[in-house]
Formats: sequence, C-alpha cells, structure tokens
Amino acid sequence: MKKELRNIGRFRKAGYQAIDRICDYYYSLEDKPVVAQVEPGYLRKLLPDAAPETGEPFQTIADDFQKQIMPGITHWQHPSFFGYFPTASTLAGTIGDLYASSVAGPGFNWLCSPAATELEAITMDWAAKLFGLDEVFMASSLKGGGVIQPTASDSCLTAVVAARSRFSKLHPETHLQNLVIYGTTMTHSLGAKAALILGLSFRALEVSRDDAYGLRGETLQKALREDRAAGKIPFILIATIGTTSSCAIDNITEIEQAVKEYPELWIHIDAAYAGVTLTCPEFREMCHLDAINRFAHSFCTNFHKWGLVNFEASGMWVRDRTLLTDALDVTPEFLRTKHSEEGTVIDYRNWQLALGKRFRALKLWFVLRSYGAEGFRAHIRKGIKQAELFATRIRESKKFEIVAPPSFALVVFRIIGSVNEGSPPPSLAQLNSLNRIFHQRVSARPDIFVIQTDIEGMYCMRFVPGAERTEDKHIEAAVRLFEEEATKALQEWEA
Amino acid sequence: MKKELRNIGRFRKAGYQAIDRICDYYYSLEDKPVVAQVEPGYLRKLLPDAAPETGEPFQTIADDFQKQIMPGITHWQHPSFFGYFPTASTLAGTIGDLYASSVAGPGFNWLCSPAATELEAITMDWAAKLFGLDEVFMASSLKGGGVIQPTASDSCLTAVVAARSRFSKLHPETHLQNLVIYGTTMTHSLGAKAALILGLSFRALEVSRDDAYGLRGETLQKALREDRAAGKIPFILIATIGTTSSCAIDNITEIEQAVKEYPELWIHIDAAYAGVTLTCPEFREMCHLDAINRFAHSFCTNFHKWGLVNFEASGMWVRDRTLLTDALDVTPEFLRTKHSEEGTVIDYRNWQLALGKRFRALKLWFVLRSYGAEGFRAHIRKGIKQAELFATRIRESKKFEIVAPPSFALVVFRIIGSVNEGSPPPSLAQLNSLNRIFHQRVSARPDIFVIQTDIEGMYCMRFVPGAERTEDKHIEAAVRLFEEEATKALQEWEA
Repeated sequence: MKKELRNIGRFRKAGYQAIDRICDYYYSLEDKPVVAQVEPGYLRKLLPDAAPETGEPFQTIADDFQKQIMPGITHWQHPSFFGYFPTASTLAGTIGDLYASSVAGPGFNWLCSPAATELEAITMDWAAKLFGLDEVFMASSLKGGGVIQPTASDSCLTAVVAARSRFSKLHPETHLQNLVIYGTTMTHSLGAKAALILGLSFRALEVSRDDAYGLRGETLQKALREDRAAGKIPFILIATIGTTSSCAIDNITEIEQAVKEYPELWIHIDAAYAGVTLTCPEFREMCHLDAINRFAHSFCTNFHKWGLVNFEASGMWVRDRTLLTDALDVTPEFLRTKHSEEGTVIDYRNWQLALGKRFRALKLWFVLRSYGAEGFRAHIRKGIKQAELFATRIRESKKFEIVAPPSFALVVFRIIGSVNEGSPPPSLAQLNSLNRIFHQRVSARPDIFVIQTDIEGMYCMRFVPGAERTEDKHIEAAVRLFEEEATKALQEWEA
Repeated sequence: MKKELRNIGRFRKAGYQAIDRICDYYYSLEDKPVVAQVEPGYLRKLLPDAAPETGEPFQTIADDFQKQIMPGITHWQHPSFFGYFPTASTLAGTIGDLYASSVAGPGFNWLCSPAATELEAITMDWAAKLFGLDEVFMASSLKGGGVIQPTASDSCLTAVVAARSRFSKLHPETHLQNLVIYGTTMTHSLGAKAALILGLSFRALEVSRDDAYGLRGETLQKALREDRAAGKIPFILIATIGTTSSCAIDNITEIEQAVKEYPELWIHIDAAYAGVTLTCPEFREMCHLDAINRFAHSFCTNFHKWGLVNFEASGMWVRDRTLLTDALDVTPEFLRTKHSEEGTVIDYRNWQLALGKRFRALKLWFVLRSYGAEGFRAHIRKGIKQAELFATRIRESKKFEIVAPPSFALVVFRIIGSVNEGSPPPSLAQLNSLNRIFHQRVSARPDIFVIQTDIEGMYCMRFVPGAERTEDKHIEAAVRLFEEEATKALQEWEA
C-alpha cells in the first residue's frame, strides 16, 4: 500500500505537469511551424535502440516528450492548418478521454462496463437528434441505432460486410467474385480499400464537372442495368456527402428514385467530413437529409474531423440493427452473460468488426455537453464563413481560379499563368507544372499547410478551414502568403 | 485571444481536478464493487434525451461523471478482478495517452506527425527485442516490422486479409469459396469472426485434453491432406499461444514440421494474452519462440491485456512488410507525399485496415520507459506466482478440481460434489448444474469477478490474476470466498 501511495503521488505530479504543458502548448501553438520540420529517421537517431532495463521517472520521459517527440508533431490544431480535413482535439474532448483512459475496460459486452455501452447508445441518439436523423436511426427506437467506430474506414467496411452478408443470405448461390461495390471516381479510397480487404470488386461510376462531381441517378441506373445484364451484382453503393477532392455531394434524392427497383442494394452514406453540418438546418436540404431518412441503410460522419471530438470517433448509424448483428454475432460460451441472453442490452461487439472497443462515448459526451448544440453549430458556421471569405479573396485575385465550387468549407483552387496578350493560353501540362511549383513552394513554408488534389487531370490545391482556433485573420494571412508564393512560382516557372 | 485564455484556464482547472479524481479513484478502488451493480437501462433513466442547447461548465460534467457514469463502471483494475483476461490501465499509460490526446492527428501517413510513425516503429522494435523476436520482425531490419493495431481481432483480420491477398495473387484462378481459415476448437472467436467478415470458411481442428488442448502437428497435416484432396484451400493457420478457455499452447514446433510441404500456408501466431510472458526467458521455450522466429509470418500480442498499456494497443509484427503493403496499399493523389514516394518512410495506413490511427505508441513508450524491462518482467512473474498460489489452494480443497492444468496465469477449475460413500458419482449434467449454481452465487458477489467457460462440455470457472494491484492476500481472500460459496452452492444443489 505504501508503494501504491507513492505511485499515486508521482502520478499526481506528472498529471498536473501534463495538464500545465498542454496549456503551454496551446498558448504557444500559433508560433510553432504547422508541419513538423524533421527529416525521415530523425527520431531513431535520438532514441536508444532498446527499452531501458530499469524504470525511469515520469519527469525524464515527459521532458523527452518535449525535446524529442514534440518537434516531430504536425499541429492539426494550428490555426493555419488547412490540409486534408480538420482533425479535432479539443480541451473538452481531452478531459473526457482522460477519464476514459483511467477506467479502461475492453467494452466487448454490456457487463464490461454498463456505463460505456449505455452512454454510447445515448450520446449517439443525442447526435442523431442534433443532425435531424430519423428516429429509426436511434437506439431508443429499438430498431436501429448508432455505434462509434474508430474511423470512417471502419464504418464503411462494417457496412460493406453487413451488406454482403445480407445479400449472401438472401442468395446463397451467389459467387463472391460477382459482387461489386459501387462508388464514384470521387469516392474516398476507403471504398476501393474495402473491396481490396474483402476480395471483391469496386466500380467507380463516372461523375462530371457539370454536376459538381456528384453522382446522378441516371448514371447509377445505367450501371445497375449494365452490370446486372453482365451477371455482376452490385450489392452496396457508397454515396458521399462531401468528397475528399472537391466536397462533391452525390444526388441522394435522385439515387432514391434510381434504386426503387433494386431493394437489395444497400445504401451507405459516407458523410465522414460534411455530415456534422447537419447540426445546422440550413445545410439539411443540400445534404439530402430527407432522402437519407427515408431510405439509407447506414450513415456515417466523423466527430473527430470537424466535429470537435478527439480522434478516433466515427459515428455510424443503421436503420436496422439486426443487419449488423446478423452479420457479426459470434458468441462463444465465455462471452455469454445473463443480460445478453435476455436481450435487454446492446453488446457492441456485434455491431463492429473488432471484439473490443475503447470508451469513446465519454469524450463525445464531454464535447456535446461542453459546447452545447449552439456551440457546435457556431463552430460549423464559422468554418463555412471562413471558406467563403477565402473564396471571395481568391476570386478577387488575378493569379488564381476556383476549380471546384466552394462546398461546405472546402475550396479547390489553382494558380493560373498570367497570359500575355497575343500569346496562346498555357496548356494543361504547363499549368500543372506551374501548380506543382506553387505547391512545392507553399509546402516549404512552416507557417501554413495545404495539400494538393487531382481533379480530372488538373493539379489543384485544397483549402479547408475548420480548426477551432482559426480566425478570419488567419484566412487573410493565407491569401497574402499564396499571393506572395504565386508571384515567385510564376517567376520560377517562366524562367 | 481572451476567449482562448479563458478556455485554457478552465481546462487547467478541469484537468487538475480530473487528475485528482483519478488519484481518489485508485485510493478507493479496493472498496468498490468489482462489477457495476446496475440494471440494464439505468443510465437512460438518469440522462436527458438530448444534448443541451447551451454549453455546460466542465465542473457539472465532471460531477455527473462521478454520479452517473462511475456506478456503471466495471473495475478491471480492481485487485479482485479475475475475469476474462486482465485489461490494463496504468498510471504511466494514462499520462502517455493524455499527451497523445492533446496533439491528436489522424496518423495515416508519416507527414501527419512524423513522431507518431517513427515512435511506433521504434517502440515496436523495443518490444520485439524485449520478447526475443528475431531481428527480421523489427522495422530496423527494413524487412519486417511492427504495427500497433487497436485489438487482436484487428491484428488477426489484417493477417487473414494479407494471407488471402497473397494466395489470390499467386493463384488468381482460386475461388474465394474454397479458401479456408484454420484454427482449433479452442481458437478465440476472432478466427470465426474473420471468416464471417470475409465470407470465407473457418475450420476448427480438433484438440484433446491429453495434449492440454494444444494443436498437434499430425492433426494439422491430416486436415491439410483431407482438405486439399477435397479441393479446399487452407491458406492461413491461426495458431494460439494461450487460448482463452484454458490457455492452451498450440505445438508450434510440430506445426513447423507439418507445414514444410505447404509453404503457401500463412502462420499467424495469436498470443494476444500470453505473448507478453516472452519478456521472461523462462517462458520462451514453452511458447515455442525459436520456431516462431524461424517460420511464423505474423505474431500478435496485446500490450493492453497483461502488458501494462492502456486499451487499445495490440502489437502485431510481420516477417515481411511487403506482405501487408502489397495487400493494403491504396494511395490516391491526395495521400501522396514526397517522402512516401521516395520510400524513406513508413505509412502505417498500408499496414492496417483503417486509414487513420491514434498516436498509440506514446502510451507504449511511457509504459516501457516507466517500468523498464525489469518492472515489466516482475509484473508478469507476479501474476504467474499468484496463479500458482491459487492452484495450490484449490488442490488442497476437497470441494474443487483443476480442470485444465494451470497455464501462464490462468487456472480453470470447477466445484465437484461431495460424494457420499456408496452413492454413485454425479453425472456430467449434474456437475454442470452444480457449477452453474456456484457461478451464479459467485457472480452475485460484489467483491470478486470470475467468468465461466466450457471445456468439452464441462461448465467451469476461469481464474486469472494479472491486475497490477492484486496481492497474494487477494488470492487468499478469493479462495476463502469460493469455499464459502461452494458450501452454499452444494446445499442449494442438494436441496
């Protein structure tokens, strides 16, 4: 017991210090380079090649964290982080996660910690309500319900597995080789990866610039007819609200009509990034919420992106929970419990691929309560406004063009060459090489982070505000920086 | 900025309080009921049915955590928790995880946070060295390497996917329907679940009590011959070191001989629970370490079980990293980076099923440094000694018998009826009903937790020390409690 008291005393000291250092981190965040300025292999040079033989004090390890690890951190919370999509780490989420860490259990059934299971069902109902999802998607309906998956890849893979299982049970004669997963050329790589993992095919349906890269109903219908005629069986469509490249929105309302004759086609809505905007009523029509509520089988949005909850926390809801449990329930004797047998509780292991799960609902609970619906909506609207501000500035500039119409908080743009009168406009290849130079220049800057994307062969930049600490002044600064680097990129390119 | 300062100030206060409350939690842990004493649905009665409209102060949420959530927590760190396998939550792991939470990034490529990727490769090398794994399994060999998966289910599923992909590439004509995953009747349900997820078959090979439920080489060879003759293709064997039911050890050394003619059969070693004992040289022979080093394709042990690292943290090592990356690499334009293209860095997204990952290496680093190799080994040896102490006491008692020989820190036992002279010994069914009564009685006690298992039709109890705070006195108390409840169970049964 004496040893225990000593250990707890040391933990208290180390814990206070960790909290203080996290405070210091956020005080000074803006002064740090956005992206880690280290070379591959930097850390192996600093660390010993084996764990120490005898234990070391917390203080030594914590100091090494500052000295050795921190320089290798890319700061996703930096106000000038505009790359990929935001990945949240909020102070509220950190506190929630700290409590979760301190009572760790593996969460594979209700008894593992009843509070973990119940809080997950309840907070996922809260979120469903906040997003305007139909009651059927709530656990309280006893029909569907929500489950927190680690990432959107997990949510999507789980949906594909359940869809395949449902289809195979209805048609046991089906050859796996004939099963096809549908997405579009803009679907996140999680679609192709699900196919790779399951040994199935993935078909990327065509989308066009005229439709702002969203899937149309007739394209889907044509593909379904073609594939069915060729003996192929599309069994799930991954429809996206807010693609990674350009934040395109598949036309879910048209899709609803298109699949009327294909009731066995599972519709998974991947709104990993943009789904959280449903908290704001003004985005619901654009996101086809009514259609989703009427016919989607599963819906996913990541709290850990724009949704203020620390990574990992991907929200997944299903219309019918038996679609998951029928596909994923394997219960050996040692996992049987009285309550599970009686059917009075949820055992989340049967709603997901892995057996165990961390108590992720706690950070979601802390975030939803600490921000409130109001604070959550304000955060989303701030990001949208900042993207609009950015788009306005880019349009005002003669050096750039908007490539994909601003959607949610994503703006895709590229630098265009200044055209001398009389000389022919630069070719696509020339513009791409110019944009590559521009991107390289911007990437070399420590005070901003953006990434490239490819849209129909065009090399472009993606700009995504959404970090909690980004203010309008950071958007203005980004525009000035781009102008500056564009001037230099043009000089380099012309030379 | 003023708002930010205020927020940080609030976080500091809430953070200090969380640290204090975690200290209080561990001070009073022993006085709490081991398993949550709540009924299904308890939490929904306490919580509102929607997130609050306006944000609430941290203090309110933290107080509700104590009042509403804590009673629904099952205390896996309780010194009298002997159920399932231990699930770690150490003070060192909690500090590491707190830092990880505060700098959250999605970890899908090196650039996301170079430190996260590099620390994972380095600490997994440290652990490999600690366990005596061959150099080829270390990232420093540039051949194989380690990756931290969330759970052993993920590690196993990843191995199965990679094995299937490898086999399908070698034999593109193979029908998925013919592929078979091998395990034994004692393999964890993760094997059957991997088959369910992938739509493949799982064959549970027979094991017998005479072999302490470990797979023999000749059983495997016979099955391989049978299945191949029938056109079936076993492509992976999940061999277990320490099964859940009885901690059986598959005979990896015999398996090595048995599969010599089947070089395409992937051998995955699932040592989820027992693998951490490899830190102690005295367990290496028993765990067939030499054979594993010679021929296994992948090896898994969970740090988050007996290994002092907070959930989730499943260590997975492969002999050849291209076996993973060839199966799992899908790299769209927006995920390309200079360093990845140059091949100078690891992008862990191609070593796992999901795209993103949490910075789990940080808690592993904190734990390995804080305990040191010495402290880690001492923790393992303490658990083993306590299991031996328990087995000795059980053998001394006339009310119980040991069902499976004590293996690692697991003892499987059951209550046996007191046999009156002259009367026939009780049947299996009678003994099972007696053991059910005994289990129900013990389960109703708030001061201990054990679970049941089924071994060849026998209803038995599993007893597993391994929680960090368990002392010999808790083992002695458990034995007294079992004696007490056995007496009452016998009375109830005879009546």
